Amino acid sequence: MRAGRGHWIRVLSPLILGLLLWWQTPPVGVTQQAWHLLVVFVSTIVGIIAAPLPMGAVALLGVVASVVTHTLTIEQALFGFGNKVIWLIVTSFMIARGFIKTGLSSRIAYLFVSRVGKSTLGLSYGLLATDLVLAPAIPSNTARAGGVIYPIALSLRDIYKDKDSDDSVGAFILKTAFQGNLITSAMFLTAMAANPLAAQLARDLGVEISWTTWAVGAALPGLVSLVLVPLLLYKLCPPAITKTPDAAEMARQKLKDMGAMTRVEKIMLVVFCLMLCLWMFGKQLAFHSTTTALVGLSLLLVTGVLTWQDVCQEKEAWNTLVWFAALVMMASFLNKLGFIPWFSETMGRQLGGFHWFPAFIGLTLIYFYSHYLFASNTAHVSSMYAPFLGVAIAVGAPPLVSALVLGYFSNLFSGCTHYGCGAAPIFFGAGFLPTGRWWRVGWVVSVVNVVIWLGVGGLWWRLLGYW
Amino acid sequence: MRAGRGHWIRVLSPLILGLLLWWQTPPVGVTQQAWHLLVVFVSTIVGIIAAPLPMGAVALLGVVASVVTHTLTIEQALFGFGNKVIWLIVTSFMIARGFIKTGLSSRIAYLFVSRVGKSTLGLSYGLLATDLVLAPAIPSNTARAGGVIYPIALSLRDIYKDKDSDDSVGAFILKTAFQGNLITSAMFLTAMAANPLAAQLARDLGVEISWTTWAVGAALPGLVSLVLVPLLLYKLCPPAITKTPDAAEMARQKLKDMGAMTRVEKIMLVVFCLMLCLWMFGKQLAFHSTTTALVGLSLLLVTGVLTWQDVCQEKEAWNTLVWFAALVMMASFLNKLGFIPWFSETMGRQLGGFHWFPAFIGLTLIYFYSHYLFASNTAHVSSMYAPFLGVAIAVGAPPLVSALVLGYFSNLFSGCTHYGCGAAPIFFGAGFLPTGRWWRVGWVVSVVNVVIWLGVGGLWWRLLGYW
Repeated sequence: MRAGRGHWIRVLSPLILGLLLWWQTPPVGVTQQAWHLLVVFVSTIVGIIAAPLPMGAVALLGVVASVVTHTLTIEQALFGFGNKVIWLIVTSFMIARGFIKTGLSSRIAYLFVSRVGKSTLGLSYGLLATDLVLAPAIPSNTARAGGVIYPIALSLRDIYKDKDSDDSVGAFILKTAFQGNLITSAMFLTAMAANPLAAQLARDLGVEISWTTWAVGAALPGLVSLVLVPLLLYKLCPPAITKTPDAAEMARQKLKDMGAMTRVEKIMLVVFCLMLCLWMFGKQLAFHSTTTALVGLSLLLVTGVLTWQDVCQEKEAWNTLVWFAALVMMASFLNKLGFIPWFSETMGRQLGGFHWFPAFIGLTLIYFYSHYLFASNTAHVSSMYAPFLGVAIAVGAPPLVSALVLGYFSNLFSGCTHYGCGAAPIFFGAGFLPTGRWWRVGWVVSVVNVVIWLGVGGLWWRLLGYW
Repeated sequence: MRAGRGHWIRVLSPLILGLLLWWQTPPVGVTQQAWHLLVVFVSTIVGIIAAPLPMGAVALLGVVASVVTHTLTIEQALFGFGNKVIWLIVTSFMIARGFIKTGLSSRIAYLFVSRVGKSTLGLSYGLLATDLVLAPAIPSNTARAGGVIYPIALSLRDIYKDKDSDDSVGAFILKTAFQGNLITSAMFLTAMAANPLAAQLARDLGVEISWTTWAVGAALPGLVSLVLVPLLLYKLCPPAITKTPDAAEMARQKLKDMGAMTRVEKIMLVVFCLMLCLWMFGKQLAFHSTTTALVGLSLLLVTGVLTWQDVCQEKEAWNTLVWFAALVMMASFLNKLGFIPWFSETMGRQLGGFHWFPAFIGLTLIYFYSHYLFASNTAHVSSMYAPFLGVAIAVGAPPLVSALVLGYFSNLFSGCTHYGCGAAPIFFGAGFLPTGRWWRVGWVVSVVNVVIWLGVGGLWWRLLGYW
C-alpha cells in the first residue's frame, strides 16, 4: 500500500501552502482573522484541486481547520449547513432520483428522439431537448449527462456503428450532447450544483438573483446557443451518415416496450409541473425556490414515489451538502470579515482609469478562459466568482448583469477541455474524438458561446431592464 | 396495493388533528404564530408516533408545513441544520462506522468476555463493559445494541442452547444486555441520539449541560446501576447454567482468529482515546464537543480508516440530521415565540402551593412512566422534555439537576416495554421471554433504576455541587 510521489505532493501542497502563508503579515486593510480565514480558504481550494481526498472530505478538513485554529467559532463554521440555497440543491438531488427511478427521464428522451430523430442533426436536437426539459429539476449536470443523456446517445450511435467506420456519428452526437449539456446547465439556477453557489456569493455582495431572474435572463441567449451550436458542430464534426430512420424507430420501439405511463411516472410528471409553476410564480405566494423544492419532495414522499430510504441513501446529495456548506460558509465570512470588499476595492482602484465596459469584458474573458486551469466548476466558482464580481461592480459594471454573466459563464467555460466538469470525461471517455480535436472544437464553440451570450444576451438584458 | 384501515388512520390522524386545532383561538398569553407552530409541532409528534412514514419523512413534512403556512420563514425553518449539537451526532454516527468497519468493537467485546466470561453473571458484565466502553462514541444505542452486543450475546447463548432446554441463559443474557444498554445510554451525552436533543432543549431554557457535566453526573448512579441491575436480573430471570467456561474459550478462539490488531484498528483506538481526552479536557482548549468529534472524523478520513464514500453512505446519520434538525428547530421556536415559557409559568402557578421537592418527584415520575405510551425516545423527549423541565424550574427545583434527571430518565424509561426504543424489539425479538414477563421484569428494574438515580444520584449531585 505504498503511495506514489504524486500522492504525497497532493497531500502536502495544501498543508505547506497553508503553513507558509499563515504567519505572513496581512496587507494593510485586512484583519488578522480575515487573513487566517483566507489562508484556510486558499488551502482548501488548493486541496480541492490537488484532490488528495474527495472534495467533500477536503472541504470538511477546511471547516475543521478554521475551528481548531480558533479563526471561527464552531457555530460560525456550521452556519452554512442551514443555508437555504444549499437545501435547494440537496432537495433537488432527491427529486432527480424520482425522475430516474420512475423511468420518466428515459421516456422523455425516447419521445423526443422518436419525433425528431430521423436525421443525425434531428437526433442531436432531440437529446438537447430532453436535457433542456430535465435541466430545471436535475441539479447535477453530471447526473443528467451521465445518467440520462449519455446512455441513450450511446445506444443511438450503436445502431450505426457498423455502417460508420470512423465513428463520425458517435463523435458528432456525443460532442453535441456534451456542449448542449453545458448550455442547459447555464439556463437554470437549479441546473448545475454550483449555480446556486454563484447566486449565494452574489447575494453576499448585495445582488439578489431569483430563480426566475436567472431563467428569464438565460432564455434567449440559451435558446440561440442550443440552436446554433449543433449546427456549428455539424460543420466541425460532420457525421458520415445524416439520415437515421432506425434511431427514431428504436425510440418508438423502446416507448412501446415501456407501455403506458405508470402511476408513479404520472405523479412524478404532475409534481414536476407543479414545481415549475411554483418556481415561476412562487413570488406571489411568497414561496422561496427552496420551499418549492421541499414541497415537491414532500409530495413524492407522501405519494410513495420516493421512500425515505431513497432520500437517506442519496449520497451525492449529502456529499454536496458538506462541500457546499463549507465553501458557502468560508466565502460568506471572507466577505463579512472584510476581505472581499478590500480586494474588490483595491483591484477596482487599479482599474480605475478604464471605462467599465472594456474592464468588464476583460474580467469576464479572464474568468472564462482561466477554466483551462480547473477541473471543477465548483472550485472555480468558489475561488474566483466573488472577487471577480466584486471588482466588476467596483469598476462600475451593472451589478445584476455582471453577476449573471459570470454565473452563466461558470457553466459554459467547461466546454474547452475534457476535464472541465464532471460531464466532460464521460462524453470524452467514449473515445470518439482525440484530445487535440476535442480541445480545438471546444475552443471554437467557446468563442461562439461568448459572442452569443455577451451579444444577444447583452441586448436581451437591456430589453428586460436588467441594466 | 390497497392499504388497510389502520394505514389510513395513521395517515389522517396527524392531518385531522392539525386541521381541528389550527383555527382554535389560542389561550390568553399565546400569540397566533406560537399557536400555529404548536399545532404543526403537535401534528408532527402525532405523525412520528402514528408513523405513516418513517420519522425523518414526517419531520420533513412538519418543516414544510411550518413554511407553507407562513408560520415560519424558510430561513427559520432551516435554522436547525446549522445546530452544533446536531453535527455532534451526525459526526458520531460516522465515527461509530469506524468502530464497526475496523472490527475494533468486536475485539473489545471478545476481550471482555474472555476475561470475565467464565460464569453466566460474568458474561453479562463482560457485555455491559463492552457497551460502556463503546457508549461515548456510538450515539445510536440501537446500533450499539444491534450491531455489536446483540450478535455476540446471541452467539454466546448458542454455546449453551442444547444444555438449556427453557433458554434461561439466553433470557438472562439478553435481558441484561438490554437493560444495561439503557444505562450506558444514560451515562454519556453522546451515547444516545436524543440526549443532545435534551441538552439543546435545556440550553434553550438557560441550563447549559456540557459533555463532562453530563458524564460526571451520571458516573456514580450509572455504575451502581450497572453493578446492581445484573444481580437483580440474576434473581428475576435465573439462568439454569451458571458456569460458562466454553464462552470464555470461544471468545479466546475468536480473538486468536482475529490475530494481532491491524493498522486501522490501532488508528481507530488512538483516535478514540484522543477524542475521549478532548471531550473531557476540551474546555481548556476552548474545543466544543462537536469540534472534537469533527477532529476525530477528520483524522479517520486522513488516515484512510474511513473513506469519504463511507461518510456519504452513512444513511442513519443523514436520517438523524433531518429529524433532529426539524425537531430542534420547532422546539427552539416554540420557546422563542413564548409558548414554553407561557406553559411552564401557567403550570408552575397551578403547582404553586407545593414545595418544589414533591412537585419535582411527581413530575419526573410522570415523565418516566408516560413512556409506556411512546415507541421512541426522541418522540418523548421532543414533546415532553422542554415543558416538564420548564415546569420543574418554575416550581423552584434546581435547574441543572432537573435537566439532568429528565435527561437520564429519557434513556432509562425505555426498559419498561418491548417497544420503548430501537434496541427493545431487537432483544425482545430473540423470543426468550414472553411479553408479560418482559414487562413485569422491566417494571421492577425501572423502580430500582428510579431509586438508584434519584437516591444515589441526588447525593452525588449534591456532593458535586450541582444543587
